Amino acid sequence: MRLVMIGLGRMGGNMARRLMQAGHEIVAYDRDTDAVAKLADAGAIAAASLDEARARCQEGGAEAIWWVMLPHGAVTDGVIDQIAGGASAGEVVIDGGNSFYKDDIRRAKALAEKDVHYVDVGTSGGVWGLERGYCMMIGGPDQVVRDLDPVFSALAPGAGSIERTRGRAEGIDDRAERGYIHAGPAGAGHFVKMIHNGIEYGLMQAYAEGFDVLKGKASEKLPEDERYDLNLADIAEVWRRGSVISSWLLDLTAQALASDPHLEKFSGNVADSGEGQWTIEAAMEEAVPVNVLTTALFARYRSRVEHTFGEKALSAMRFGFGGHVEMPQ
Amino acid sequence: MRLVMIGLGRMGGNMARRLMQAGHEIVAYDRDTDAVAKLADAGAIAAASLDEARARCQEGGAEAIWWVMLPHGAVTDGVIDQIAGGASAGEVVIDGGNSFYKDDIRRAKALAEKDVHYVDVGTSGGVWGLERGYCMMIGGPDQVVRDLDPVFSALAPGAGSIERTRGRAEGIDDRAERGYIHAGPAGAGHFVKMIHNGIEYGLMQAYAEGFDVLKGKASEKLPEDERYDLNLADIAEVWRRGSVISSWLLDLTAQALASDPHLEKFSGNVADSGEGQWTIEAAMEEAVPVNVLTTALFARYRSRVEHTFGEKALSAMRFGFGGHVEMPQ
Amino acid sequence: MRLVMIGLGRMGGNMARRLMQAGHEIVAYDRDTDAVAKLADAGAIAAASLDEARARCQEGGAEAIWWVMLPHGAVTDGVIDQIAGGASAGEVVIDGGNSFYKDDIRRAKALAEKDVHYVDVGTSGGVWGLERGYCMMIGGPDQVVRDLDPVFSALAPGAGSIERTRGRAEGIDDRAERGYIHAGPAGAGHFVKMIHNGIEYGLMQAYAEGFDVLKGKASEKLPEDERYDLNLADIAEVWRRGSVISSWLLDLTAQALASDPHLEKFSGNVADSGEGQWTIEAAMEEAVPVNVLTTALFARYRSRVEHTFGEKALSAMRFGFGGHVEMPQ
Amino acid sequence: MRLVMIGLGRMGGNMARRLMQAGHEIVAYDRDTDAVAKLADAGAIAAASLDEARARCQEGGAEAIWWVMLPHGAVTDGVIDQIAGGASAGEVVIDGGNSFYKDDIRRAKALAEKDVHYVDVGTSGGVWGLERGYCMMIGGPDQVVRDLDPVFSALAPGAGSIERTRGRAEGIDDRAERGYIHAGPAGAGHFVKMIHNGIEYGLMQAYAEGFDVLKGKASEKLPEDERYDLNLADIAEVWRRGSVISSWLLDLTAQALASDPHLEKFSGNVADSGEGQWTIEAAMEEAVPVNVLTTALFARYRSRVEHTFGEKALSAMRFGFGGHVEMPQ
Repeated sequence: MRLVMIGLGRMGGNMARRLMQAGHEIVAYDRDTDAVAKLADAGAIAAASLDEARARCQEGGAEAIWWVMLPHGAVTDGVIDQIAGGASAGEVVIDGGNSFYKDDIRRAKALAEKDVHYVDVGTSGGVWGLERGYCMMIGGPDQVVRDLDPVFSALAPGAGSIERTRGRAEGIDDRAERGYIHAGPAGAGHFVKMIHNGIEYGLMQAYAEGFDVLKGKASEKLPEDERYDLNLADIAEVWRRGSVISSWLLDLTAQALASDPHLEKFSGNVADSGEGQWTIEAAMEEAVPVNVLTTALFARYRSRVEHTFGEKALSAMRFGFGGHVEMPQ
Repeated sequence: MRLVMIGLGRMGGNMARRLMQAGHEIVAYDRDTDAVAKLADAGAIAAASLDEARARCQEGGAEAIWWVMLPHGAVTDGVIDQIAGGASAGEVVIDGGNSFYKDDIRRAKALAEKDVHYVDVGTSGGVWGLERGYCMMIGGPDQVVRDLDPVFSALAPGAGSIERTRGRAEGIDDRAERGYIHAGPAGAGHFVKMIHNGIEYGLMQAYAEGFDVLKGKASEKLPEDERYDLNLADIAEVWRRGSVISSWLLDLTAQALASDPHLEKFSGNVADSGEGQWTIEAAMEEAVPVNVLTTALFARYRSRVEHTFGEKALSAMRFGFGGHVEMPQ
Repeated sequence: MRLVMIGLGRMGGNMARRLMQAGHEIVAYDRDTDAVAKLADAGAIAAASLDEARARCQEGGAEAIWWVMLPHGAVTDGVIDQIAGGASAGEVVIDGGNSFYKDDIRRAKALAEKDVHYVDVGTSGGVWGLERGYCMMIGGPDQVVRDLDPVFSALAPGAGSIERTRGRAEGIDDRAERGYIHAGPAGAGHFVKMIHNGIEYGLMQAYAEGFDVLKGKASEKLPEDERYDLNLADIAEVWRRGSVISSWLLDLTAQALASDPHLEKFSGNVADSGEGQWTIEAAMEEAVPVNVLTTALFARYRSRVEHTFGEKALSAMRFGFGGHVEMPQ
Repeated sequence: MRLVMIGLGRMGGNMARRLMQAGHEIVAYDRDTDAVAKLADAGAIAAASLDEARARCQEGGAEAIWWVMLPHGAVTDGVIDQIAGGASAGEVVIDGGNSFYKDDIRRAKALAEKDVHYVDVGTSGGVWGLERGYCMMIGGPDQVVRDLDPVFSALAPGAGSIERTRGRAEGIDDRAERGYIHAGPAGAGHFVKMIHNGIEYGLMQAYAEGFDVLKGKASEKLPEDERYDLNLADIAEVWRRGSVISSWLLDLTAQALASDPHLEKFSGNVADSGEGQWTIEAAMEEAVPVNVLTTALFARYRSRVEHTFGEKALSAMRFGFGGHVEMPQ
């Protein structure tokens, strides 16, 4: 198939490459003309404007298909508005970024008035996706998603060597086993991806806390015969092998520790990308308690400031009640 | 009554003063001879050693009563061992510090072999106790606690002007209403005090977080019409008046904010005194979930370090998966 | 002053009464005509419709003032729309309920187009407010709030016998000390009240967890000499007296325990009224960690279901890995 | 090598089998004589008593090696005491169960007085270990652990097909890559295993919460166009493929959901085995905040009761302040 890829950053660029490797044709567009040139070198059709992109895509013999891979929020909304402005009935807009699922619902409604289809795709794969494939969670109208199957199939990892799940019935929809699902109507793809990221935060924080306690076990504040100077790289390594906590995130931790055992290269100021927060909001709308996911997000907030005002308030209360004069600076 | 006060720091010194104001006689002992001299000026009988303290106390006509007001752990254990070494049957050792209740249970058993009585008293009152009285939670044998009643009654705030609890039966044990209770056998006093402090941490953290969000509402990252530059001192003040969250801790917060609205005098490195941790341990022994109490304690741990190793591990995982290169320093 | 009170439930009815006791005139309106009749018996001017309410209020010689005391959300929005439909320039709409502050911002803008003033008032006081007065946090235009001062002053508790905050400057705005503040522009009142309720949840949960551990200490699973059968009513009582965790919420706990020591009358299914959730959302918008406030809210969510699906997922994982066959029902 | 296996339950029995498959000789002992007979059928040397076990083991030409695979606590302590009673210098006691690491430190000291060696082995592998091998974390004296290498090597999974960690140096100790490590002196093995289980709880809870929110998204309380009826089995499946949250625990979740999409076979009363609690205790000794690990443990506590007393206390406070009469049963 021929489709336009808008946004040729780390994710978009690599997805375009993976699609071309599978025989698809990519019309490449980005405000950064260098990025376009670079992808053209790799075989893409360069476009200097959205109009040109549409024209080149239609040459493929069908209405334009737009894969938008941009930062969520205003940037993505702006581009989709622009596309919509000149769109013909039957065009398809795919948002492969990290949009909020309620934005998908809103956009799908707006585009439907012009008979433009909207598909939201939550994508996981990171810098590894080009090589290993992308795990995709898709929302949108059934037929449109079916029609795009060659695209999703090419981007996905495929069944590969991962063992089949015991108990999984034969003969059912095998897309999940090849690395992508049609989760539901508009927004369902990004909703599932959002929860995926919420879980990711929780998993990461669980490992982080565990390694923190391992590291702290060498502390001289502990009784001497209860102190261990543990080899964290070896511990991460051994847990990859036969232990119930083996995972990809642990693999990544083992890699980091292998070359930098004290993680001195890292600041510990940890960003978050919005999905953790949205996951908590979704949970609250459902009145579902999500203590781990929330506390994992809050650990990131806390990591980014030197002190909270609240901590000073604690010091102030302690001083006021107990005269703990060691507290004031 | 005549009793020995050992440990004349902020708490012990003021308790001795309050007891003397009520007509009790205090034999004062501390390794810091200045502290002894100062209390002697206020009317206490100075003692230069534990033996001298015992001798002076017995002059009162009864076996010695020892009120120990020292840091918990080795210091208190050491002094109690010393007292026990020379004790006669019938002496009474009162630990008014913040000992771990399992230490009380152990000590009470050991002292009972010598017919020495052991009483544990958890005390709240801070720097305000001298004036307002001390809230006390007492563990120990019933008759011994009864015999000490004049002491407890003098230290306690008394009924004062605090409204009587609606629904509380008439004619029942009124000690709780005068500010002290006999909670149960050895350790029960410190156990109740320990939980008291666990709750205190939770309450403090609840206020701290609330004020943090109030303060953050002025952030320039928020949309302009959703920003408020709130007067935190006035907010603390108004909540003291008719609001369901009025409390002593809020009074203290209001005091701090009244003179230092940005709490610039305070570092935000918040200490903890052991009881928070013990409360969590007790809860885990009972399999009771105490999320608020735990998270309040952990906020203090976190406040005392620049970054946890775990946060660096998060940065490392993010880098490994997503190539988030902004993270390395 | 003369004003219309709309919504004569527990809160609205009592506030109308307190205003009339202070000499204000109340035009009473509610869809429940019995509630109107009852308040008319107490001296209010009954109105059978919003139009009649407006007419009766204007007889007071000024543009109508509307105090709306209804459930937040659609109900309040509906009534305010109706009022706005017939409003003259200079009328004032006061929302004294628990509205979301962003709704206030929106409404204030909409009403300003008609020169109708909007004031939001967060109110704490519960069933005690009639007698003790209401703590109020007010948002809106400065002059309008000033003009309404006789109303706020009458509803508030006044300085009463509550001790003045040490360190608070003399001669500054004394409204906070009389129990109400003008927090800022539209929405600021409800924002401060929202955080107030967020803190309230945290405080409540801290006490709840503490009493849970006290109660659990009698468990037969613990070693016999580490078990205490504690008198929770006495503990709540004694903490009211000289202890740093004394508070109104503790007073209420003491009342409950005084007459029902095992709290057998209570289900433990705990509702929440929205403000806790909004507080978390506000904190996340500011990237402020609020672990205690969140976990307190989530404890309520959890209290309302028999089991979460997540707990079944835990059982399933345990079974899958360890063959823990005791788990399936 | 020849060694005694004591405790032939699910773990011990399978480990004995895996050792025999690798050519080691097992002397089998268990109080359950059926279990002994069953293992003898599989090639083990049956022993009817500890003395007989020692004698049969020594026939192998060396001092007895005891692999103890029993429930932690009194049971393990009792058996080790019995072994120690008749032990000759040079015997080796291996505790392969889930003992508390401080018990290891204590035991190692006691046995060292008799020149008996003590080795602690934390083992992960579950019901899958027989086939896939066991991940082992070992504590004890260096030479003793080296001498036992053929045993550990046989039990471990070996390098297998798991990709080598990028950045891991060549030529370093390769035991971690074959699935076992010598973590440090006495207790270090169980300490690392304890943290492993702490992390496991956190990971499990992160998945559990995520699936909970996915499931709740079908709730009729949500606006109709924001509801999704998601296929959880497919979601678990697709996340196994190219997503950063792929893991063994996710594989197990996918298996459970494949055959029981609503997890109706599971109660949701989730047990814990002690290590989660010990992990929190260790963290508190180090003053390391472990919010995720703690909240994961507490979710299990909460899952095992209908209501906490604390929840009733919340209801009581709400009733006391707001007259929320819906609360009492």
